[in-house]
Amino acid sequence: MNEFDIIKRYFVPLAEQFPGSLLLRDDAAVLDVPAGQQLVVTKDAISEGIHFIGNEDPAFIAQKLLRTNLSDLAAMGATPWCYFLSVMLPHTTDEAFIKRFCEGLAIDQKTYAIHLAGGDTIATNGTLSFSLTAHGLVPYGQALKRSGAKVGDHIYITGTIGDSALGLRILQNKLPQAAILNDDEKQFLINRYLLPQPRVQEGLELRGVATACMDVSDGLVQDAQKLCAASGVGAEIHLEQLPLSEPARKLVMHDLALWPVIYNGGDDYELIFTVPYHANTKIGAIVADTNTRVLFNDKEQNLTRGFAHFTE
Amino acid sequence: MNEFDIIKRYFVPLAEQFPGSLLLRDDAAVLDVPAGQQLVVTKDAISEGIHFIGNEDPAFIAQKLLRTNLSDLAAMGATPWCYFLSVMLPHTTDEAFIKRFCEGLAIDQKTYAIHLAGGDTIATNGTLSFSLTAHGLVPYGQALKRSGAKVGDHIYITGTIGDSALGLRILQNKLPQAAILNDDEKQFLINRYLLPQPRVQEGLELRGVATACMDVSDGLVQDAQKLCAASGVGAEIHLEQLPLSEPARKLVMHDLALWPVIYNGGDDYELIFTVPYHANTKIGAIVADTNTRVLFNDKEQNLTRGFAHFTE
Repeated sequence: MNEFDIIKRYFVPLAEQFPGSLLLRDDAAVLDVPAGQQLVVTKDAISEGIHFIGNEDPAFIAQKLLRTNLSDLAAMGATPWCYFLSVMLPHTTDEAFIKRFCEGLAIDQKTYAIHLAGGDTIATNGTLSFSLTAHGLVPYGQALKRSGAKVGDHIYITGTIGDSALGLRILQNKLPQAAILNDDEKQFLINRYLLPQPRVQEGLELRGVATACMDVSDGLVQDAQKLCAASGVGAEIHLEQLPLSEPARKLVMHDLALWPVIYNGGDDYELIFTVPYHANTKIGAIVADTNTRVLFNDKEQNLTRGFAHFTE
Repeated sequence: MNEFDIIKRYFVPLAEQFPGSLLLRDDAAVLDVPAGQQLVVTKDAISEGIHFIGNEDPAFIAQKLLRTNLSDLAAMGATPWCYFLSVMLPHTTDEAFIKRFCEGLAIDQKTYAIHLAGGDTIATNGTLSFSLTAHGLVPYGQALKRSGAKVGDHIYITGTIGDSALGLRILQNKLPQAAILNDDEKQFLINRYLLPQPRVQEGLELRGVATACMDVSDGLVQDAQKLCAASGVGAEIHLEQLPLSEPARKLVMHDLALWPVIYNGGDDYELIFTVPYHANTKIGAIVADTNTRVLFNDKEQNLTRGFAHFTE
């Protein structure tokens, strides 16, 4: 099967309801940004053996790729609009993989009201890789940014933290503590790794409310530090106020040494955001010095660095 | 060096003059499309060993990546605006490569008045790969497309064809006929492969003039067939009217068997376009049946298929 057949059979059906795609038959897409809207653009790539294992359901790989990009749009308060996809295929990848990968995209296109608008399919001598560029729309001047947090703001999070990092370790057979969980609990954590839930609706609702916002992909602490660096402030994060799923709570109560997996683990795709007033579900507060501290019942914890894609 | 250091040291300087990039410090870029303009978006990826050899000057690899995308914008009649870049780095790639790669981008950002607006840097267990998404602007309704060619239109090309395919074969020591060329002539052909010249200005001038347009990347005949398929017409291409560089002319006069390398070779990055009236530099004409024929002094040639990135 050559690249033109792949595009015609699998990618054109994902684009044909979006007029700007020109049915993928031209050199580029032509898009009309509605008046009063700004375009929000993000680009994330993934590569086999680093960002996915390779033996997952190809639909999950597609959905995770799309959802991690949608999480970036959510962090800006943008409504998903369209996306562009580069597929880099080793000669060993078969048509069944591509078919199932595109089925995953089709499911999430419906869930998130987004359409394929362009891209390309190339051969590679390396590993299976994908790059996705997602386009969203936001009313003029209303994009959420990392840079608006003020001293005294409270810090919130849209959902439970640590599930995905624990789920990955279960998949990799690197979490012996998981023996205390039942199968449903293990599967819950694994699914949080395989299929993140981008907080699109929450992002829209935070427009005009949050002073700063970003999505947690590299670990709660590392990403909180980035938000603080962009805002020129610091933060205190209170672990005992961190929302945990029941399986994650069981694990960390069983073995307190798992706390760093929770707050440094990454792949959470929840939104961390700051607001200038009180509420009950805050996880911490913005402080004047530019450090990020983690506390448990007001006792400061010894931090180790969050998930980094590269090591020295 | 981790991904954050790479971004700060090498990529932020390429983005800092473009406000929408938010200095690459946020989850996404925020862009204002000027009123009355449509956004033109294209995405092309390249992988070592397939689209570049790997021992080239890294600046050339960067420039070729950017220029092949600019060629797609040119084919739509769009003005270059900004781009997003994914870099997939094997652990063996050193900082000197990235530094030189970004120097190449900096040179072409000035040449083509385009800015980096976002992207990401990831590790890969595979080969060095890049994906670039280029954004251009075109006045509303004026984008050039492949679909407007009419029977009787004449076919034109913005420059010489075949140089790049011949240059690649010289680089690969697969063109013994090149012994008849001097070093300058060989280098001219090699440079046409290494550093394509996207026809940005020509694309702008073709707005309102060309009935159909696309860039020649997969070979003149194969791409003419695509333009014709989008327009529901066919074409006759007259080889003797094809503009050739002096080194290419020497080679094909020396060995007529090189003709298919000229018209099927690919990587030309010239614009092929159709106009409804006469001029002297046409290379062919649009016909009613939906075949593309190649003729030399009115004698039909036996076609072999153009360059395809995949084989059966």
